[in-house]
Amino acid sequence: MIAKDPISKNQIKHIRALGQKKQRTQLGQFLVQGEKNVRELLDSNLTVVNVFATQSFIQEFESQYPKVHFVQADENTLAKASTLVSNNAAIAVVNIPQFDVADPKRDTGLILALDGVSDPGNLGTIIRLADWFGVNKLLLSEDCADPFNPKTISATMGSFSRVHAEKLNLAHYLESSELPVFGAYLGGESVHSAGFRSDMILVMGSESHGIRPQLESLINNKITIEGFGQAESLNVAMAAGIILDNVRRIIS
Amino acid sequence: MIAKDPISKNQIKHIRALGQKKQRTQLGQFLVQGEKNVRELLDSNLTVVNVFATQSFIQEFESQYPKVHFVQADENTLAKASTLVSNNAAIAVVNIPQFDVADPKRDTGLILALDGVSDPGNLGTIIRLADWFGVNKLLLSEDCADPFNPKTISATMGSFSRVHAEKLNLAHYLESSELPVFGAYLGGESVHSAGFRSDMILVMGSESHGIRPQLESLINNKITIEGFGQAESLNVAMAAGIILDNVRRIIS
Repeated sequence: MIAKDPISKNQIKHIRALGQKKQRTQLGQFLVQGEKNVRELLDSNLTVVNVFATQSFIQEFESQYPKVHFVQADENTLAKASTLVSNNAAIAVVNIPQFDVADPKRDTGLILALDGVSDPGNLGTIIRLADWFGVNKLLLSEDCADPFNPKTISATMGSFSRVHAEKLNLAHYLESSELPVFGAYLGGESVHSAGFRSDMILVMGSESHGIRPQLESLINNKITIEGFGQAESLNVAMAAGIILDNVRRIIS
Repeated sequence: MIAKDPISKNQIKHIRALGQKKQRTQLGQFLVQGEKNVRELLDSNLTVVNVFATQSFIQEFESQYPKVHFVQADENTLAKASTLVSNNAAIAVVNIPQFDVADPKRDTGLILALDGVSDPGNLGTIIRLADWFGVNKLLLSEDCADPFNPKTISATMGSFSRVHAEKLNLAHYLESSELPVFGAYLGGESVHSAGFRSDMILVMGSESHGIRPQLESLINNKITIEGFGQAESLNVAMAAGIILDNVRRIIS
């Protein structure tokens, strides 16, 4: 193994800066932290700028990934540099990918749209779900959490490398699309009998406010997860998982 | 409004002690923290020892709940006393309830059993699900998280007051029960075609290790959530929610 340069103060500063959305946008980069997520990253098509990692992590992976620039750091230093509280065997700086822009006139398949889902952990969990259920596109209203927020990336459990989430004006998109639009509401038709389609858009609102009233006229089918007890609601990611499973029961 | 005694140092110490499982067991008490959870608590049948709360919280609720002993504290003090990082309008000390012990020879209905689900947040989310889907009993293997852990209580979003989770020897219970036992595995029968029953036990394993091998021979039906993408797995609470929805599609 060739001796590695140790991590520099400027590199630590750079990592910490990428904890902020403004810096991520300016630099066009984001962080992937933790062993599992960095391993998924190394197998992805994303462009990795640097991987800061422990000696043992580097020894395990550098021969498999000769093009990746590894920089060695001890666990304490990685913990200090990290914007998360755990999982500090590796931190990667990655270029934010360019990808196909959503096109309401051409997009097909199963499309998931989130309206005002502002919690990064919920968004990350939904990205993982979108990967599990083979969602074709994930659309985010402008006030959703940032898909490149470190907490979002962490919650995706590696699925960030396969699911592209795009922010856009959701009302404009729904207005221009001709696909049937299903929306999760309390008091709609049961997900057990809803007529899901191969090409469709599913809209999920925020946990506290639901789908905003301005979108209601753009939604063709209101659907509901039936409750059998006294809980008031389900978490938005949980509700998305249950509905996507019902969609796949019909259109798999 | 009658002037309230302010919170004492010993009371703060008492609250903080209940952050530890050993102390909860010794004192037979647990904490309910945060406005939403304390409000659910006040409407429940649980025995409340004290509610430490801000003046505005007390003004809003003391006339509705004349039997509850409110103790006034400012937000900073509540934040210091709390074992959680947020939601500090109110902290309640509550007696751990006595409830019917699970009986494998008599229990009926939809029974959910967790094997080694050690994360308190996941357990709390599953308690909320059990409440939503009308689960009759929630059984926990001895190595599951403590249902009275503050993080568990917080994640239940109030459902802790309606769902009793009981720790027991899960292998012994399953051996003695005559109900059909369904277990979540990778590579089992699809949840979309499984023959769920009105009286049944659903076993969910831990996210990292699944159901432990010692239980495998006690499980009659292996079931699986079909994946359509590349994600490796779903979180255990998410998987439980999706399976329970499928059970309720059949036996509602």
